[in-house]
Amino acid sequence: MTVSTGGEQGFLYDQVSRHVLGLIEQGTLRPGERAPSLRGLSRQLKVSISTVKQAYGSLEERGVLKVRPQSGFYVSGLPQQAPPVPRRHAVCCKPRKVRFGELFEEIFLLANNPEIVPLGAAVPSPDLLPGKGLLRATRRAAGLHAEAAIDYCFPPGLPALRRQIARRYAEFGVSVSPDEVVITSGATEGLTLALQAVARRGDVIAVESPTYFSVLRLIERMGLLAVEIDTDPETGMDPEALEMALETMDIRAVLTVPNFNNPLGALMPVAHKQRIAQLVAEHGVTLIEDDIYGDLYFEGERPPPIRRFDEAGRVITCSSFSKTLAPGYRVGWVLAGSRVDDVLEWKQATTSATASLPQLGVSEYLRSGEYDRHLRRLRQAFRDQVEHMRLLVARHFPPGTRITQPAGGFVLWVEMPRGNDCLEVFHNALEAGISITPGILFSATRRYRNCIRISCGHASSDEIEAAVEKLGQILSG
Amino acid sequence: MTVSTGGEQGFLYDQVSRHVLGLIEQGTLRPGERAPSLRGLSRQLKVSISTVKQAYGSLEERGVLKVRPQSGFYVSGLPQQAPPVPRRHAVCCKPRKVRFGELFEEIFLLANNPEIVPLGAAVPSPDLLPGKGLLRATRRAAGLHAEAAIDYCFPPGLPALRRQIARRYAEFGVSVSPDEVVITSGATEGLTLALQAVARRGDVIAVESPTYFSVLRLIERMGLLAVEIDTDPETGMDPEALEMALETMDIRAVLTVPNFNNPLGALMPVAHKQRIAQLVAEHGVTLIEDDIYGDLYFEGERPPPIRRFDEAGRVITCSSFSKTLAPGYRVGWVLAGSRVDDVLEWKQATTSATASLPQLGVSEYLRSGEYDRHLRRLRQAFRDQVEHMRLLVARHFPPGTRITQPAGGFVLWVEMPRGNDCLEVFHNALEAGISITPGILFSATRRYRNCIRISCGHASSDEIEAAVEKLGQILSG
Repeated sequence: MTVSTGGEQGFLYDQVSRHVLGLIEQGTLRPGERAPSLRGLSRQLKVSISTVKQAYGSLEERGVLKVRPQSGFYVSGLPQQAPPVPRRHAVCCKPRKVRFGELFEEIFLLANNPEIVPLGAAVPSPDLLPGKGLLRATRRAAGLHAEAAIDYCFPPGLPALRRQIARRYAEFGVSVSPDEVVITSGATEGLTLALQAVARRGDVIAVESPTYFSVLRLIERMGLLAVEIDTDPETGMDPEALEMALETMDIRAVLTVPNFNNPLGALMPVAHKQRIAQLVAEHGVTLIEDDIYGDLYFEGERPPPIRRFDEAGRVITCSSFSKTLAPGYRVGWVLAGSRVDDVLEWKQATTSATASLPQLGVSEYLRSGEYDRHLRRLRQAFRDQVEHMRLLVARHFPPGTRITQPAGGFVLWVEMPRGNDCLEVFHNALEAGISITPGILFSATRRYRNCIRISCGHASSDEIEAAVEKLGQILSG
Repeated sequence: MTVSTGGEQGFLYDQVSRHVLGLIEQGTLRPGERAPSLRGLSRQLKVSISTVKQAYGSLEERGVLKVRPQSGFYVSGLPQQAPPVPRRHAVCCKPRKVRFGELFEEIFLLANNPEIVPLGAAVPSPDLLPGKGLLRATRRAAGLHAEAAIDYCFPPGLPALRRQIARRYAEFGVSVSPDEVVITSGATEGLTLALQAVARRGDVIAVESPTYFSVLRLIERMGLLAVEIDTDPETGMDPEALEMALETMDIRAVLTVPNFNNPLGALMPVAHKQRIAQLVAEHGVTLIEDDIYGDLYFEGERPPPIRRFDEAGRVITCSSFSKTLAPGYRVGWVLAGSRVDDVLEWKQATTSATASLPQLGVSEYLRSGEYDRHLRRLRQAFRDQVEHMRLLVARHFPPGTRITQPAGGFVLWVEMPRGNDCLEVFHNALEAGISITPGILFSATRRYRNCIRISCGHASSDEIEAAVEKLGQILSG
């Protein structure tokens, strides 16, 4: 075993780091993959194991590698070299009608072509979902409850499932009674019911900016007005901007995605969550939160929904299993707090029962205990895919590009250099067989023309790498 | 073999008829059951076979027996002895807000107790539905399309299912393109989407009187006004009354159930359907029809929906498999005619995808060809159950009672003698462990306080007989 002197060791140690960084830059080593073993790299580069260890330790500090106990070092990404995150923009604080008309439908029609590289829709790849396990659980449930599988399951929905959902909230410190869990056809129906319960045509809803376009589409259809609130790419909706809006405008409800919002992936700090819960209580408005990405955190613990800080019963929480288990099962829910009767009445009137078999299947899957094991794998896969995509965008997009660094979820928001128009990029990308989502859809005021959203729902592949390279060529620097 | 003389034979023939009528009145012979064979009864009553034959022939003419080729005579019911059908009431033609508030929820909460004799909800008994066959088909479909079963199936829905639905309409002369079939979460969502597509808060919707309470509940929630149109217990919504309303009021849409409406079971004659299609075209309003009971005809051929006579593209047809196959699957559809884009946009905005697995399961079940065989059995079961229930009501309810004689579906509308209040009857029946639906729910103006709806969704049984007898005691004569 060679023991090097101070100066020599410093040199070697940098060499080792550069070697590993090079492998990652070239794509030989991808995020999520195992780095060469200490012993292997020591032999290959002819340096001591302790030198490799030191290099790996420094790469770990810089966030490039990550140690997994009993397993070794794994590639996280190249954070230092990635482009900066998008700037936070001050948005014009005036309620607006949303008018997209056919733009939505046109984009979705084009983007749903299965032949296309799927960087558009925020849909997890079926490969990442436990399809077989869930279908097995569904078959078991249908065997056990054949009559219930066929019969109506009237609102609020399957009692066993509502208890399981309430229990999951208890695990991260949110106390929920099964009585206020209303099962819905996905989180989309949850948001619809929440808005129907609290707002009428002409009412103003405060939203993030940028915000998930389905929220804007719903606001448009319901004849509501949207007011966009400054939203930080890393910390989400800004409590001060919200406070100002609440003080100057007649706002009916605030709609926010506190955990890994779509498209920014921002995680609202606990202090902001507390402040916003306090603000809506003070102003007597309802807060509707969409917590659909909350289980997809990359580090640490499951972040709480704002509901955890709601003492006034002013928060309606919507979520679903669509991003973590089975989009097609359409099993979502609303925690309706003090509005549970309103939400229930709207549910009964507009769609009545939710499909029974998917509820039975999800309930049985949860009962089996497989869900938490699956979530651990899924979080890791999304973390790796997001990091890899950031690397690819960093490598292939022109200088001046900015990318979010989400703390969870599986979408990236990319601010393109000036002169790029998202609709042009959208159409040119489609011609090249690639779908992305144009930024213009994420605002009621058609800002974000220089932004696109890239979904990382599918595992990294040569096809995806080539698609990102192609996107880089489509963009002008 | 004895050959009787004229007078003697007349006497004997009447005796035979009375004997058989007596067996039916006592409940020894129930509708749907086989009558004693000609030979058997001839031996038992010591009359000639031709006398029994003549008696049976006359009972057949009177609608009491029905011959089934190669099988014998079967009991239909006792039409001559059943009470008269309810009178048609002229209704006050003024648009009204619907205000039920908590009455609905209270009634459903009470009525959904599974311990109770289920004469309330219009739900087919699981025993009558092909649960096993459908679950088998669903399992096959999940095996063949595991990825699709888990993944989103975005609006308008599963292409194969939409083609099958369009083909079924073609079979009874309605030409529908699969492109205008939008899959919904049950017919309830279909009606919601249709109303959302055409009407706004404050608009007036013309409805039948009495009409299905879920329609009124939806109208209430959406802030629409209802105007009730005279509706005949046998022929449905009256075209002349509708014409008068269209000429004197600003009506936005007409909502009708032309085939076996709920609660009357009325079948609108073709001439009325044609006239109503013409009227809505002339007045430039939309007609929304709910054809959910159309497949449940008791005699002859599948009656057409009004859509068949729609030349102006003004008809939106809603339906589902909830009353014929699986309420809990929540597979319904809308034929949106010229409004398909509006309906689709509302669907995408408010609930987005419909659950995939139920769509795949129904599609596979339809493909297997089992559905039509099942429908034949189901129609016969409902016909027998409805007829038997009419008989029971006739036997046990006080004089002055009137009952509908539906031509399809599986509900009965009962007009009680004066002095009976449906809510009192509802509560007293509940105390006796029986659910019925109070008539007051079927009108925006709280008429029909002296009516109740009885569901015949469950097979006749001693329990149901006892329940009807008990109801008869609860009513005052």
